[in-house]
Amino acid sequence: MITPLNKLAEWHNLQNLAHKTPINNKSLRVIEAAGISLDISAQHYSAELSKAAELLLQARDFNKKRLQLFNGDIVNTTECRAAWHTALRSPDPKHPEILEERQRVNAFVREADSERRWRNVVHIGIGGSDWGVRLAVQAFGYSGTWRQVRFVSNIDGHAIEGGLAGLDPLETLVVIASKSFTTSETLENALRAVQWLKNSSLKNPFDHVVAVTANTRKATEWGVKPEHVFKIWDWIGGRFSIWSAVSITTALAVGTDVLAGMHSGAAAMDEHFRSAELTHNAPVQMAIAGVVNRSILGYGSLNIAPYDFRLANLVPYIQQLEMESLGKSVLVDGKPAEVSTGPAVWGMPGTDAQHTFFQWLHQSSDGAPVDFIVCQHAQHAWANHHTSLLANCLAQREALINGKSYDQALQECLDSGMNINDAKSLANHRVHTGGRPSNLIVLSRLSPYTLGALLALYEHKVFTQATIWGINPFDQWGVEYGKRLADGITQALKPDGKVENKHDASTAYWLNIFKNKSN
Amino acid sequence: MITPLNKLAEWHNLQNLAHKTPINNKSLRVIEAAGISLDISAQHYSAELSKAAELLLQARDFNKKRLQLFNGDIVNTTECRAAWHTALRSPDPKHPEILEERQRVNAFVREADSERRWRNVVHIGIGGSDWGVRLAVQAFGYSGTWRQVRFVSNIDGHAIEGGLAGLDPLETLVVIASKSFTTSETLENALRAVQWLKNSSLKNPFDHVVAVTANTRKATEWGVKPEHVFKIWDWIGGRFSIWSAVSITTALAVGTDVLAGMHSGAAAMDEHFRSAELTHNAPVQMAIAGVVNRSILGYGSLNIAPYDFRLANLVPYIQQLEMESLGKSVLVDGKPAEVSTGPAVWGMPGTDAQHTFFQWLHQSSDGAPVDFIVCQHAQHAWANHHTSLLANCLAQREALINGKSYDQALQECLDSGMNINDAKSLANHRVHTGGRPSNLIVLSRLSPYTLGALLALYEHKVFTQATIWGINPFDQWGVEYGKRLADGITQALKPDGKVENKHDASTAYWLNIFKNKSN
Repeated sequence: MITPLNKLAEWHNLQNLAHKTPINNKSLRVIEAAGISLDISAQHYSAELSKAAELLLQARDFNKKRLQLFNGDIVNTTECRAAWHTALRSPDPKHPEILEERQRVNAFVREADSERRWRNVVHIGIGGSDWGVRLAVQAFGYSGTWRQVRFVSNIDGHAIEGGLAGLDPLETLVVIASKSFTTSETLENALRAVQWLKNSSLKNPFDHVVAVTANTRKATEWGVKPEHVFKIWDWIGGRFSIWSAVSITTALAVGTDVLAGMHSGAAAMDEHFRSAELTHNAPVQMAIAGVVNRSILGYGSLNIAPYDFRLANLVPYIQQLEMESLGKSVLVDGKPAEVSTGPAVWGMPGTDAQHTFFQWLHQSSDGAPVDFIVCQHAQHAWANHHTSLLANCLAQREALINGKSYDQALQECLDSGMNINDAKSLANHRVHTGGRPSNLIVLSRLSPYTLGALLALYEHKVFTQATIWGINPFDQWGVEYGKRLADGITQALKPDGKVENKHDASTAYWLNIFKNKSN
Repeated sequence: MITPLNKLAEWHNLQNLAHKTPINNKSLRVIEAAGISLDISAQHYSAELSKAAELLLQARDFNKKRLQLFNGDIVNTTECRAAWHTALRSPDPKHPEILEERQRVNAFVREADSERRWRNVVHIGIGGSDWGVRLAVQAFGYSGTWRQVRFVSNIDGHAIEGGLAGLDPLETLVVIASKSFTTSETLENALRAVQWLKNSSLKNPFDHVVAVTANTRKATEWGVKPEHVFKIWDWIGGRFSIWSAVSITTALAVGTDVLAGMHSGAAAMDEHFRSAELTHNAPVQMAIAGVVNRSILGYGSLNIAPYDFRLANLVPYIQQLEMESLGKSVLVDGKPAEVSTGPAVWGMPGTDAQHTFFQWLHQSSDGAPVDFIVCQHAQHAWANHHTSLLANCLAQREALINGKSYDQALQECLDSGMNINDAKSLANHRVHTGGRPSNLIVLSRLSPYTLGALLALYEHKVFTQATIWGINPFDQWGVEYGKRLADGITQALKPDGKVENKHDASTAYWLNIFKNKSN
């Protein structure tokens, strides 16, 4: 049993304080953790507010729950599972199979590299079996890699068609990543890829197939050679797969060192999360700001703005992490949460985002908190470019904090030579309300270590928010339901399928049209 | 002068009706327009509500404003400009230069094709000078094109580094797209690209450079050969550039026919928008649903879900179109809008989205309206894939409409063999509230014609919403302000620059750190 937030005195205390605490543009709050600086100066903050949040965490048994997470206890209560992704990156993992699989991945890549084998890798997976690999390959292989990596995730046939187009099967490795080895998109696309291998002159197409799964039996029955099956485990949620052998594609593209570096960075953030006091704990402080913005100040969404072209795939990665974890409205015991929980998460790298939707962040009726992420040092030689990038990042954030008043806008219009009437009218259009919250996350440079730490920062932030809200961040019943419904409709659309009359009018209408088409 | 919505009787009437009108799952409302079927059955709707919306449009002088848009009148009042993108795709454009530029683009591409010139195109532009081209090239060149096209938009130096990596300058055309020819990202990246051309054995690097701009003089002063400068005009907003010579890169990648087809489809939607009665006018009905969802029912965001791998870039395209246009909170006369205006727009192709954030759409506290977009016919040969894609699209939409009740969830749990106590507890986690609105947009197939029509559908929806809200959808003062601030900070970060003391504590802190680094 757990108490809904709005029945807790600690919550009402936090609410009252948050409503009367503005963003203080004289304050400077920077937390250093695992090579990352988290600047939370531009959040609603006071010492009192911070104390209130700490009391709320106590009321939620936060210390105990954090311990359970790290111990591999059953924290995913609706599925009776641990969520032990921290073990995967531990320098000294308690589970012996973890080290074994790490070594198997490294050995596989070492052998492939030494023989210059596989010019192309087609990685087939979706959601958690896809985004993390895309993220790391783009981050460290943004200017091309010796092996060409293609990603095929969508059930849309154009995806696998495009994914295989122009590749030579003799030089191609197909990696199939599915925890359950039942994901329909992945198996359908994998089937297509294996047929494509079979149509070549290969003696055994399965020499060119690798699987990563918790369902070893199913993968081998499907045809994958046992020595090509890499293991994940039931106690690793799909959205935490990046820490597992799913990253074998990353290692093939940009090296096994990248995996090791990411593990180290994440482990350092784990240690910080586990041991830093709450007031200087980066994930905890980010989580508090997030809950205040969402459930008290009413911001409906959160914008992720990596000022780094290489981190484009951080956006979908964080979308999955946050929205699958926090897109729930019942408490762990099944009662209604009674406050607004996880926000919509969206974003795009800056400066592209500035030319796409920053208008909205500045001047829309609602706005959204922004996480600015930037590297102090670039890995290219063009200083002007990097100075501009840093300047744009700071400038946008400053505009959100401070805004532009009517008087400033009016003066600007007058300075440009307008007459007073025109200036007065136009000035209203140039007002920026300001007072909009943000985080600034600075990495010294983009390395496997800092990327690993960054991902763990978000993971633990999400865990902390779930603990405050009292929801289970590790299940995803909404995903399961959609899969089941789709299976039923797929049957109905087959030539001999029947359209049942349980559907709404519009679904029935389209079922009939689509069905006739496929006859 | 214009009246804020909440001072209009017509608005209060609409509000009252919307609050008491649920989604009716027995109703079927499909509007056919320009090769597209818009299904709005899953929106809050009644005949009364529709009548109320029509009266509101009258109160907003909608007919007159629509006429002004098509006539090329000054509809962008804060910048004293027309927004005459419809002229660019007209089969009989009133402006003689339009046809001339269309022909120049075609001639340029024809010549390049006949000589098999330029194996690579590096397209440099950002925002409106980027997304439309990316969208069309991915839509029609998803399985590769003879010419390799790279896009460089971000000021992040890794972007131009990655964009040029591995290309042969002798075989590369650089296209610089900037309406003003002052966009700092674009000029900085273009400079880098031209230096790269100069470092090769080319006699004249500018033989390999094309510019698309409204500032011909600046482009030629910069070095571009006059015959390589293609014109756009002041009366075309940046976010409508896809209809202009900016699409020369699209034509080089996937053919001039694609441009012609997109123009035809958009022109057909223009004609529909101009002439169809309001109750059967696709953009108008979409706009009404959008305003109801946003300003009356309180949905803070809008999700775009193209069930088509080829339309991945539709998401950022629509983000820019909607959020730059509608991210305003003042009326055309400068007074406060007093109701919530444009929503946050975000999305991702399905089925990837299902494995990323559909959990949130189904079970979060807030949810968001979804625009499902799907093609009835695929252009590949794998029927199973397409059937699954269609099924997933319909299934997700149905789950949002109908949800899953506690009783259904309980029965499911019991059927799976759970004991009654466990089943009762888990059932709460499996409830889907349902009643969440969506559009279903069905294209017969993805062609230049239907893509053009789709984009025009959204454009006119946005225009109609702006008319209802009483805001100017054609300016973007929030973008201008950010640019100005960034220029100042860029100066401060240079070795001889000075950090002024007007900044907030955090910005000042980082300015000093970043500055020392660059010394």
